Amino acid sequence: LDRRTSVMGRNTDMRWRLPLVCLLWEVAMIILFGIFVRFNPDADVAGWQKERHKQNFTGDMDNDFYFRYPSFQDVHVMIFVGFGFLMTFLQRYGFGAVGFNFLLAAFGIQWAILMQGWFHTFEQGKILIGVESLIGADFCVGSVCIAFGAVLGKVSPVQLLIMTLFQVTLFSVNEYILLNLLHVKDAGGSMTIHTFGAYFGLTVTAILYRSNLESTKDKQGSVYHSDLFSMIGTLFLWMYWPSFNSAISDHGDAQHRAAINTYCSLAACVLSTVAFSSMLEKKGKLNMVHIQNATLAGGVAVGTAAEMMLTPYGSLIIGFVCGIVSTVGFVYLTPFLESKLHIQDTCGVHNLHGMPGLIGGIVGAITAAAASESVYGKEGLIHAFDFTGPYSSRTTSDQGGFQAAGIAVSLGIALVGGAIVGGILKLPFFGDPTDENCFEDNVYWEVPGDEESNLYCMNDSNAKPVTDH
Amino acid sequence: LDRRTSVMGRNTDMRWRLPLVCLLWEVAMIILFGIFVRFNPDADVAGWQKERHKQNFTGDMDNDFYFRYPSFQDVHVMIFVGFGFLMTFLQRYGFGAVGFNFLLAAFGIQWAILMQGWFHTFEQGKILIGVESLIGADFCVGSVCIAFGAVLGKVSPVQLLIMTLFQVTLFSVNEYILLNLLHVKDAGGSMTIHTFGAYFGLTVTAILYRSNLESTKDKQGSVYHSDLFSMIGTLFLWMYWPSFNSAISDHGDAQHRAAINTYCSLAACVLSTVAFSSMLEKKGKLNMVHIQNATLAGGVAVGTAAEMMLTPYGSLIIGFVCGIVSTVGFVYLTPFLESKLHIQDTCGVHNLHGMPGLIGGIVGAITAAAASESVYGKEGLIHAFDFTGPYSSRTTSDQGGFQAAGIAVSLGIALVGGAIVGGILKLPFFGDPTDENCFEDNVYWEVPGDEESNLYCMNDSNAKPVTDH
Amino acid sequence: LDRRTSVMGRNTDMRWRLPLVCLLWEVAMIILFGIFVRFNPDADVAGWQKERHKQNFTGDMDNDFYFRYPSFQDVHVMIFVGFGFLMTFLQRYGFGAVGFNFLLAAFGIQWAILMQGWFHTFEQGKILIGVESLIGADFCVGSVCIAFGAVLGKVSPVQLLIMTLFQVTLFSVNEYILLNLLHVKDAGGSMTIHTFGAYFGLTVTAILYRSNLESTKDKQGSVYHSDLFSMIGTLFLWMYWPSFNSAISDHGDAQHRAAINTYCSLAACVLSTVAFSSMLEKKGKLNMVHIQNATLAGGVAVGTAAEMMLTPYGSLIIGFVCGIVSTVGFVYLTPFLESKLHIQDTCGVHNLHGMPGLIGGIVGAITAAAASESVYGKEGLIHAFDFTGPYSSRTTSDQGGFQAAGIAVSLGIALVGGAIVGGILKLPFFGDPTDENCFEDNVYWEVPGDEESNLYCMNDSNAKPVTDH
Repeated sequence: LDRRTSVMGRNTDMRWRLPLVCLLWEVAMIILFGIFVRFNPDADVAGWQKERHKQNFTGDMDNDFYFRYPSFQDVHVMIFVGFGFLMTFLQRYGFGAVGFNFLLAAFGIQWAILMQGWFHTFEQGKILIGVESLIGADFCVGSVCIAFGAVLGKVSPVQLLIMTLFQVTLFSVNEYILLNLLHVKDAGGSMTIHTFGAYFGLTVTAILYRSNLESTKDKQGSVYHSDLFSMIGTLFLWMYWPSFNSAISDHGDAQHRAAINTYCSLAACVLSTVAFSSMLEKKGKLNMVHIQNATLAGGVAVGTAAEMMLTPYGSLIIGFVCGIVSTVGFVYLTPFLESKLHIQDTCGVHNLHGMPGLIGGIVGAITAAAASESVYGKEGLIHAFDFTGPYSSRTTSDQGGFQAAGIAVSLGIALVGGAIVGGILKLPFFGDPTDENCFEDNVYWEVPGDEESNLYCMNDSNAKPVTDH
Repeated sequence: LDRRTSVMGRNTDMRWRLPLVCLLWEVAMIILFGIFVRFNPDADVAGWQKERHKQNFTGDMDNDFYFRYPSFQDVHVMIFVGFGFLMTFLQRYGFGAVGFNFLLAAFGIQWAILMQGWFHTFEQGKILIGVESLIGADFCVGSVCIAFGAVLGKVSPVQLLIMTLFQVTLFSVNEYILLNLLHVKDAGGSMTIHTFGAYFGLTVTAILYRSNLESTKDKQGSVYHSDLFSMIGTLFLWMYWPSFNSAISDHGDAQHRAAINTYCSLAACVLSTVAFSSMLEKKGKLNMVHIQNATLAGGVAVGTAAEMMLTPYGSLIIGFVCGIVSTVGFVYLTPFLESKLHIQDTCGVHNLHGMPGLIGGIVGAITAAAASESVYGKEGLIHAFDFTGPYSSRTTSDQGGFQAAGIAVSLGIALVGGAIVGGILKLPFFGDPTDENCFEDNVYWEVPGDEESNLYCMNDSNAKPVTDH
Repeated sequence: LDRRTSVMGRNTDMRWRLPLVCLLWEVAMIILFGIFVRFNPDADVAGWQKERHKQNFTGDMDNDFYFRYPSFQDVHVMIFVGFGFLMTFLQRYGFGAVGFNFLLAAFGIQWAILMQGWFHTFEQGKILIGVESLIGADFCVGSVCIAFGAVLGKVSPVQLLIMTLFQVTLFSVNEYILLNLLHVKDAGGSMTIHTFGAYFGLTVTAILYRSNLESTKDKQGSVYHSDLFSMIGTLFLWMYWPSFNSAISDHGDAQHRAAINTYCSLAACVLSTVAFSSMLEKKGKLNMVHIQNATLAGGVAVGTAAEMMLTPYGSLIIGFVCGIVSTVGFVYLTPFLESKLHIQDTCGVHNLHGMPGLIGGIVGAITAAAASESVYGKEGLIHAFDFTGPYSSRTTSDQGGFQAAGIAVSLGIALVGGAIVGGILKLPFFGDPTDENCFEDNVYWEVPGDEESNLYCMNDSNAKPVTDH
């Protein structure tokens, strides 16, 4: 009976819907790129020739490409391999984790180049792009990958593409408000990427609450090798996070400092995560979920302040605290959120991105407010916070206040936006899986050996999804 | 009976043949390197001291190392992890995929440094090498990795080393004809690497046709985790492809632009691949083979034009089209090639490298022919296409014609060369496996647990190779 | 009976000990960083503003960040993914391999920044750090990862953290003696990292000898997919080794040359490894252990000389020889060391780091002694070996002698230090596993599906650790 209901209730066959959405949106991208997107002078033949003839030109090394491309590639790896593999821990959702992350990120970066371009590099009717645009697009999509972590296993690829469209739009609006209107610093995106992405995703997953997920309890766990695949994601995120937080900082000392601070914060985070994982688990054994996720919280939490004069020991303290907050969150808060608030957070993004993102925003506000000429130098302070033009009269305590406002705005747009987008995704024709088919690749993927029994080396007689019958 | 025949027919014991070939060739490399290979001035103590004393020297950052080393490392990852893991999708050939790719690439880069050095950086009896030589060698070996994809699982390591020797040689001749005689642009190698590599490999595999591969049908498929390993390869190829296509472009805007165009093309390619995979598979489910391969076609197809003023939307169009062409190729063309033309293309390199490579050559020819002073500027046009010295009178339409000729030459040398090399590999003493032992690591590798039964968690009572009895 | 004994004999519950050590040491790091660690001028707002006003400033590209950050990231990947995954070959110790490597490295880099800082960049009571400090810290931890390979599977995380504390300390002392007192060149660490790390670890494991490891023979082997995970580690180590050996060389030609020499050495090493693996194994089959490890020996062995004028063919010869030495070591020496000298070297670090490290030290001494003005130029020779100040009268043959002394010192400190640290680790309250529980994740990790039977798809009824009962 249950089976029949679910088959009648929803149709997960993507044959026409998924191709339609993909093709429609890609054609839209092509048209919009055709109208709007051109190379900026650093990437343009004629433009660069003009740069070369300027007086202060010292060589091709002046091209922004050489300042940012290595960091861009590291960020790129974080988005596609980092987030993609991090989410492969589920035993039967590896294809979906890596594959859908790939799909939504590939679409998202195109739409982000347009949205961010309109807001930031729109000149004489054209969006001028360069390597910094690619990093910005990857950053924006990072927030979508975070939200994906909250709804992982419970939505269809069509829903994901729709969510991506809206989230990238909202991200860009929020980012514009923060960076341009509030003149806030957030180079590593504690507010714009992590806080926004996490609370947006959590709101969406709350709206899409499913009351019958206990039936998939087995599939919500990992198997031995899926945990190792997940560690590939964890480690590439962890290793490249210094590049993430320094990628769009100012040339010179700012990039350098952001990388060092992030390196320190992440190192401390590993130790406090291990300590609390062992302390809170039975028999003192370590829990892979904590190692895979909470070790990264230190990178999130210095996202705003890493390029400031946070100092290495300040970074250690933040990383140390966030490892604890995040691990404790996994043990106590995630079950609470699910049972009491009906927030089913598959990957625990609240612990990895939500709380550390908020902490990062607060740390950024404090670090900005505490900035002084005695540490930065007069010229350095102006340069570091860009207190020029209309902002030349801003003080560091003003700046701290605006930074704090940035947290509130990000949170607000995430919650309202997530509620609206969640509502849209609830519409019944997007092909989301039934409760008992959640966390199951077979619904949307050809899974090898599914015709035969016993593929996953375990007694999964109940694991075969309904759609196959 | 069948067993006895196969045992009598071929001997896959590599004990003396493989060591002999490896040692012989490595000793040859050492001797030839000793005679010919020296550092270029950027990598030489005395040479760089001389550079430092030149008038226009601005700092150590002028060293080509800093312009190209990050891209080189990305390319290096593509060759060894990218191609290596991409081919691990087969359930019983992971060791062979990663391990033989490692072997042939490690040999190939040495031989390529010599061959390309003789053609391009031979001065006063010495080959002068630098970071660009390392990239060139990796590129050359990339074409061998492609050809390896066509014959994957059906040849012995000795055959692979012989194929590598010949293919690197032919690659270098073809590259010399294109770059030096035809004065063609092909920075990302649509013609020299992809078209040449794919059609060379396809011709070899056609010559080595095996009529009894149905018996290994199971082993030609994947298992769940082998598909995830393969995605590691896919993603590193996809992410680093912008570095591949920009690695040897001119300093400054050309490297910058090539990276952006490739990024755009690849993003679009993912969406059209997903659309057509879902459209063409039963019940609209996605096929991992398409996601693993066709998503990369966009990088291949802008290999020639990425450094030109292709524009971002032009790149989107090309990526979009190639995702479709490649996916359709996997569904309809590969079975046709196997049944009608006896081309057994294990990895579907025709879809990923063959057709997109040809498209890339054509796109390059059109983009070159369409180049104009109004877009490039007078000076820019000369610089971009190197219309200097003997080529100073060449027009862009001439250039388009020469580019087209380059496609034909690459194709011709690939087909003729592949036929000859395929004929050589057919000689009966290279230790290739019997038909029923194809796609089976156990033939050339110590496989853990093979003494015990049931390792691969499936009923593989028929999977044990003959050589063990 | 046996079970009871082992339970009584040792308590592997880490609940209080592991958290205590982690928290204690992290708090110590925070305090020491607070007192001592500051940014160097390249990473400091005010400091860099001062640099900008200097006469010879040409642009932000002068910042050391741009010379070294890409190499740093490659080294970072080697330490965390490279070493971590290389050790996942054991069938039931993947979590421990990746996870404990993560833990010890994250702690080690913090302590190394302090130790190396006190010795090398201590100015007016402060340690000034920059990107080179991060590389140095990663290098130092590399030696701990090597030692971890020797004791893999046989120690508790508490023991590892204690070993890391001592080893980083001893490493820094040894490095100071070599680089500062003996004025030795060792940019890629053949002596300081590999020789020291390997012989330190081997001494520790000899002290911790376990007489009953035969009972875990199964678990000391690999399974099919664990070997593929291990290849991820191998390949990232192999690919990024040119960055490792060039990361802290002088700007310009030295970094460039070190990368090329390492690339050549590693390529040759693959061929001789394959040759000897096939030659020495039954039926000429390749052994994954050799491919995973011996192929890397070439990188170790040019660690000292890569930045010198070793020449590409010299590098080929060294790589070629070391592939042979290392493979033969795995086949003949490792069993001998275990049975005769009671050195249980889990990962065979003697073959990958010990012998090649010694060879690398010797090659460095010879290359230095053979350096001449005719090759380096007068100015170049002084620059390359830093024959300035108190060393301005040193000859190249002197230098060769000091290099040789460096090997002896490294070996001596490793052996004595390893013996002492091994003795400390033998204390009975650090929670090391019983012999039959070695190489088993379940002791220190929550392993998925361990409640159910049959997870690993094999008959492992005897594999369940005692602690679960």
